[in-house]
Amino acid sequence: MATQTVTPFDVSGAVDETTGQLKAVDYDKLIRDFGATPISPELLERFERVTGQKPHRFLRRAIVISHRELEKILDKYEKGERFYLYTGRGPSSDSMHVGHSVPFEFTRYLQEVFDCPLVIQLTDDEKFMHSKTITVEDAERYTRENAKDIIAVGFDPKKTFIFSDFDYMGGAFYKNVCRAAKYITLNQIKGAFGFNDSNNIGEFHFPATQSAPSFATSFPHIFGKDVQGTDLVSKISCLIPCAIDQDPYFRVCRDISERMGYQKPCLIHSRFLPALQGEGTKMSASVDVSAIFLTDTPSNIKKKINKYAFSGGQDTAEKQKELGGRTDVDVPYKYLTFFLEDDEELARIKEQYEKGEMMTGEIKAVCIKELQEYVAEFQKRRAAVSDEVVDRFFSVQNTLNFKGAPASSPTEAELKAAAQQKPEKSKKDKSKGKKANEGAKDIPVR
Amino acid sequence: MATQTVTPFDVSGAVDETTGQLKAVDYDKLIRDFGATPISPELLERFERVTGQKPHRFLRRAIVISHRELEKILDKYEKGERFYLYTGRGPSSDSMHVGHSVPFEFTRYLQEVFDCPLVIQLTDDEKFMHSKTITVEDAERYTRENAKDIIAVGFDPKKTFIFSDFDYMGGAFYKNVCRAAKYITLNQIKGAFGFNDSNNIGEFHFPATQSAPSFATSFPHIFGKDVQGTDLVSKISCLIPCAIDQDPYFRVCRDISERMGYQKPCLIHSRFLPALQGEGTKMSASVDVSAIFLTDTPSNIKKKINKYAFSGGQDTAEKQKELGGRTDVDVPYKYLTFFLEDDEELARIKEQYEKGEMMTGEIKAVCIKELQEYVAEFQKRRAAVSDEVVDRFFSVQNTLNFKGAPASSPTEAELKAAAQQKPEKSKKDKSKGKKANEGAKDIPVR
Repeated sequence: MATQTVTPFDVSGAVDETTGQLKAVDYDKLIRDFGATPISPELLERFERVTGQKPHRFLRRAIVISHRELEKILDKYEKGERFYLYTGRGPSSDSMHVGHSVPFEFTRYLQEVFDCPLVIQLTDDEKFMHSKTITVEDAERYTRENAKDIIAVGFDPKKTFIFSDFDYMGGAFYKNVCRAAKYITLNQIKGAFGFNDSNNIGEFHFPATQSAPSFATSFPHIFGKDVQGTDLVSKISCLIPCAIDQDPYFRVCRDISERMGYQKPCLIHSRFLPALQGEGTKMSASVDVSAIFLTDTPSNIKKKINKYAFSGGQDTAEKQKELGGRTDVDVPYKYLTFFLEDDEELARIKEQYEKGEMMTGEIKAVCIKELQEYVAEFQKRRAAVSDEVVDRFFSVQNTLNFKGAPASSPTEAELKAAAQQKPEKSKKDKSKGKKANEGAKDIPVR
Repeated sequence: MATQTVTPFDVSGAVDETTGQLKAVDYDKLIRDFGATPISPELLERFERVTGQKPHRFLRRAIVISHRELEKILDKYEKGERFYLYTGRGPSSDSMHVGHSVPFEFTRYLQEVFDCPLVIQLTDDEKFMHSKTITVEDAERYTRENAKDIIAVGFDPKKTFIFSDFDYMGGAFYKNVCRAAKYITLNQIKGAFGFNDSNNIGEFHFPATQSAPSFATSFPHIFGKDVQGTDLVSKISCLIPCAIDQDPYFRVCRDISERMGYQKPCLIHSRFLPALQGEGTKMSASVDVSAIFLTDTPSNIKKKINKYAFSGGQDTAEKQKELGGRTDVDVPYKYLTFFLEDDEELARIKEQYEKGEMMTGEIKAVCIKELQEYVAEFQKRRAAVSDEVVDRFFSVQNTLNFKGAPASSPTEAELKAAAQQKPEKSKKDKSKGKKANEGAKDIPVR
């Protein structure tokens, strides 16, 4: 394997043909290959102007690096139109690592900025169907434990719905899974994921299941149902913050969305938090020494950083003073770009380390302190997540409540306007929305 | 297409190469090709001995023609062990025809004979995903209407659970769908159904959905859940009465059942009720003149039989008297084998018709009378099926109650016996059944 591989199942940089070493993931190439759009300074400026919020450090530092039609979401936000956030996780082990919490940290930030609903899909079905060892019961247990970790990132239960595929499948959600499945051919899946005829039918079918949460009609308890003759719920937009390896799922989803009568979901991609061993791959839950786990003790964290974190520093203090360290490959420095909030301090560290004014041990010490604090704060919040709290996030009876970008059933005025706009236009899916608007929520429309 | 085709999607006899005419479906060949077992006179004798019931006319007349391991079900019935019946329908139109009611008639008979639970799957998801024209909402409507027709066949609401895939998907059922999907490769589906890479992923995945009702653990509200360390619910057997074109689904299912930790479902196959035009194909809901619909009026039935039913009689009364009619191709006679209960009368008709003592018009008149009565009785029952009745059949709160072949949670005594039998045996699916036996029903164990 000489070229880099980034799929939902495998992340690896290219292999240097002369040294045999794993190179860093080339994100510029990845974005080009995927056909995504890099996040430009202009887009960040607009984001700040429209939302009135300072862009998250992940945005400022190109950790959140590319997107698909983020402008559309900003347009909607400006106009006070409906949209929501969707992200997810494949629950594959009892304990998550700090790499797992990165996209959730960013999602929480977006939820705060937009004050909009968020749905989080836990793909226990996929993890079971893809794994040789995980049983259904394992996947169920991971789902519950991972949900606690996700909740501890700090989501607002008044704005967030978390669901397990095993349990939420059925009804409106399953109907959208079937709608998606109907438009996706085997050829498309083979092209997007590289599967072959020995893969199981569950693996082939699962992209429909990951697509369905992109459509607001999958969640009638949050968004209500389309009223006859209107498609206001179908038209609610979705923004998906995710790690860039999930892009193939949503490329397929965007391909079929319009034929399904829905909007294409918009995307915003993050890089991976590198493994301790370097940027050639991401942290792995199954390789203990590759990752800082959210359950690690302060001394564990210290030991792992000191022992395993790949250093861009020189072999000796003398050389370090003379030549300086390489921040482009230094893992402790990389981690600081993810976790250290203060831009000026980060710039100072970069300068001092590159000039040789800061030693390897010193930058590691800063990194250890930041990660210890991050994990300790997480653990404090995690300890407060009771089973009752989890149940509330999973409950379809939990009424969501949000000010911005309202997503609810249409108002009388909107229905009238919609009816006037298309007096005779025939609907593609002719009987869609014939049911009464049972799921309507009493949410103020801005 | 010179050879016969019998798949879940297409039924057609071979084409005669000299005349270009469609030949009757060759069931002997079909049974050989499928690797099923013909129902022998010895098996029928045993059936009667074990159940104490006269075999249904469909059994006596080889309309129910072959099986897979029916003996196992008789063994279980003899021993008073648990099993249940599973059948289904793809709801593809508002009105069913008499060909649709045949397998349900037989299933009702089996339910009465065995006094056991029955689950009926309405595959609205499959019909949507396979069809170019059916919307989700169409499929939902067909499901509801077809359920009324099925209920009107005469099922006992105290022993019958009817479900729509769209709505019942999720939880225990969906977990079994995923378990099945995990063991079925694309290669298997291509082999069994002849799909190619242009088919959609929903079509490829659906066989897992049709497999899952073969396992009692899909229905915790009926059978309870496995108690830790036991697999008594997993071991409940299933008998599937179905038209023989559904066999490919269950061949795939039987292939994977044991790897899933379950019993292989047993099967009992029926022939198709021929189209009015002859035994080369079956009645089609989309071809009005091919079928007698359950909504047809007496005069409609008379007109259709007189005008379209293929006759094995001679062109003139004289020739008929001289040569007699051919009951092997005569559609009115075929229909009488399905609907006329009296064996002696049927034998008399056969003899007289073949000898030329009975005219074409006369045998048609007998057939018309039988079908008019059958449809009129059906329509009377159908008119009594209210929405409340339908809701009861679909409800997971509806407690089932049956005397024979009890299927419920294990008794204390059984749990003890099971625990003693395998003191240390490790389970394949190690944490299966760790949950408490929440779904247990208070059903007398015989």
